[in-house]
Amino acid sequence: MISMVQFRECLNSLRPYTPGRPIEYVQKEFNLESVIKLASNENPYGCSKKVIEAIKNFDSHSIYPDGSCLELRSKLSGMLGVGPNNLIFGSGTDELIYLLSKSIINSGDECITAEISFPQYAASVMAMDGKVTYSKMKNYAYDLNDILAKITARTKIIYISNPNNPTGTAFPKEQQLDFINKVPKNILTVFDEAYAEFMADGDMAPTETLQLTKAHENIVLLKTFSKAYGLASFRVGYAVANEYIISNLEKIRNPFNVSSIAQAAAIAALGDESFLRYTVENNQKVKKYLYDEFSSLGLPYIPSYANFIMVDIKKDSNEIFKKLMSEGLIVRPGAAYGMPTFLRVSFGALHEMEKFISVLKKYL
Amino acid sequence: MISMVQFRECLNSLRPYTPGRPIEYVQKEFNLESVIKLASNENPYGCSKKVIEAIKNFDSHSIYPDGSCLELRSKLSGMLGVGPNNLIFGSGTDELIYLLSKSIINSGDECITAEISFPQYAASVMAMDGKVTYSKMKNYAYDLNDILAKITARTKIIYISNPNNPTGTAFPKEQQLDFINKVPKNILTVFDEAYAEFMADGDMAPTETLQLTKAHENIVLLKTFSKAYGLASFRVGYAVANEYIISNLEKIRNPFNVSSIAQAAAIAALGDESFLRYTVENNQKVKKYLYDEFSSLGLPYIPSYANFIMVDIKKDSNEIFKKLMSEGLIVRPGAAYGMPTFLRVSFGALHEMEKFISVLKKYL
Repeated sequence: MISMVQFRECLNSLRPYTPGRPIEYVQKEFNLESVIKLASNENPYGCSKKVIEAIKNFDSHSIYPDGSCLELRSKLSGMLGVGPNNLIFGSGTDELIYLLSKSIINSGDECITAEISFPQYAASVMAMDGKVTYSKMKNYAYDLNDILAKITARTKIIYISNPNNPTGTAFPKEQQLDFINKVPKNILTVFDEAYAEFMADGDMAPTETLQLTKAHENIVLLKTFSKAYGLASFRVGYAVANEYIISNLEKIRNPFNVSSIAQAAAIAALGDESFLRYTVENNQKVKKYLYDEFSSLGLPYIPSYANFIMVDIKKDSNEIFKKLMSEGLIVRPGAAYGMPTFLRVSFGALHEMEKFISVLKKYL
Repeated sequence: MISMVQFRECLNSLRPYTPGRPIEYVQKEFNLESVIKLASNENPYGCSKKVIEAIKNFDSHSIYPDGSCLELRSKLSGMLGVGPNNLIFGSGTDELIYLLSKSIINSGDECITAEISFPQYAASVMAMDGKVTYSKMKNYAYDLNDILAKITARTKIIYISNPNNPTGTAFPKEQQLDFINKVPKNILTVFDEAYAEFMADGDMAPTETLQLTKAHENIVLLKTFSKAYGLASFRVGYAVANEYIISNLEKIRNPFNVSSIAQAAAIAALGDESFLRYTVENNQKVKKYLYDEFSSLGLPYIPSYANFIMVDIKKDSNEIFKKLMSEGLIVRPGAAYGMPTFLRVSFGALHEMEKFISVLKKYL
């Protein structure tokens, strides 16, 4: 259809998101009894029982959410040791990424991110008619020095995923500190630490980023409840930064962006450290299991600091992806990331990974 | 704090949203046993029991939402008689308003809306560095001819709230048809019909807008589940338009913008017409009660086609607002709308309105 309505030109370079098929559809298509989804880095242990309880007791269906998330804000601000005005909440960190780019990108402004990273960084910048510069990776990890080298006078924002989705890599603290000292203070530097709870190694950076948001006025930390807390269905995440940054984001935030039930779920989740510990401990066990299996199969993999792993199956992974799906295992082929022989596999529960390995063996 | 980070200049004209105080806070502040909130046009009858049941049975907390809302889309597309690709879902219509402005407003482009209408139309345009032209009202109603007169070569989008929030006014079908025939086809014309279910009078426009989206390629219909369906806490709304418009909005939609539980709630709500009927019937009764009471008190009011009403109390309504709040009644003073002697009062249940009238009498 030829329409007279002219949308913004920058939309031409964007495509509608192609959603993954829900479990029920795969189940129906292949006539399967059960399907194991290892494609979206969800929590295989569900969420805290306290969350389930909170949802059961929820009773203000018809009332608008508290737009300021007062209770969640107060609880989290105490736990993190930051002021209430150092926090902004979003409908998942996705929304906060879109808000960040919208707050700072004028037509032609530049963003830097890594060539293999979370696609919403680039999409959110392109939606504002911004230009995305892709930094080269070093062993599938962010190369912070390459990012520094690519900064220009038009650079406004840098998005860094750590641990990185989809490669699972992370960088040491010293690298992060060195980087922050060198980044010009006018550039907003966003550390997306959606997966940081899964980092077992204390030498890596995320544990310090919270403190860095206090000492530096150009740093944003993004956190989500969708991964280690297991609240992906509800859509809730947050950013920590100085008040100046937060107050600018607040100006363009959709006033009721976090649903009441998502707020209730997040509050309940924060009250159950043991579930978080259980999740992280099991994640480590599953990781060790996969490392061992991949090694004995002779499959190279990228050591992971997250709850997923990239494994090189040395074949067209689109083919294997389809075969796995026909047997009820949904993973993610690497072609979309420019890694056509890799599969990205979320860490399910141990019995799910055993199933995955046994089916994978069949097709290798 | 002086920051080196430069946010977009257009943010300077925007302020962070000042949230209303949640019921619990008013209750605490004034030491009240109960509080009646008549400020946000929420459904005083709650929501369908089918929704409450669906929430109780919800069990996929840790799984990402179906980003395409397949089941909700299929159900609604059947009910409305439009194709699945004529629909886009949002986290409330709020989000869709922000998406619409973001899709079409380049720096300096113009929007037209009425001077007393829903503030997010203007905010969403200003956030894109657009210019807002305010059309004059005629008896507190949209004057569609004045909108036509204000169109310029830079006009990209027109936002029309019908029935209008906050005045409750509506316009007849013929006016809408005449308007649509005269609006240039390159201008996106958005009819926000959040309150249309409450229009009892068949001569008014909304019942026809759905058909108009099929016949015209520049018309968008916005609908919400927050009002008549009573799902305000969940954040879910939708737009109907031709596929070209929808596909452009899809390019910049946050992929998981509608939570799983919101989708489940909306699907359940669509399955209970009797709750909708009950809500609308009671809304009419309450409206008649208020018309009678305001008349006998000699208070002028704006006849309402929605679930709220603007009444002229002939005094500084900020003062009365505070006094009502101290007695546990939250309404909205008109000063923010440039109507300083008016109160906007949502239609609660009959016993709530009786309480409101008796307390109001005390302070008049």
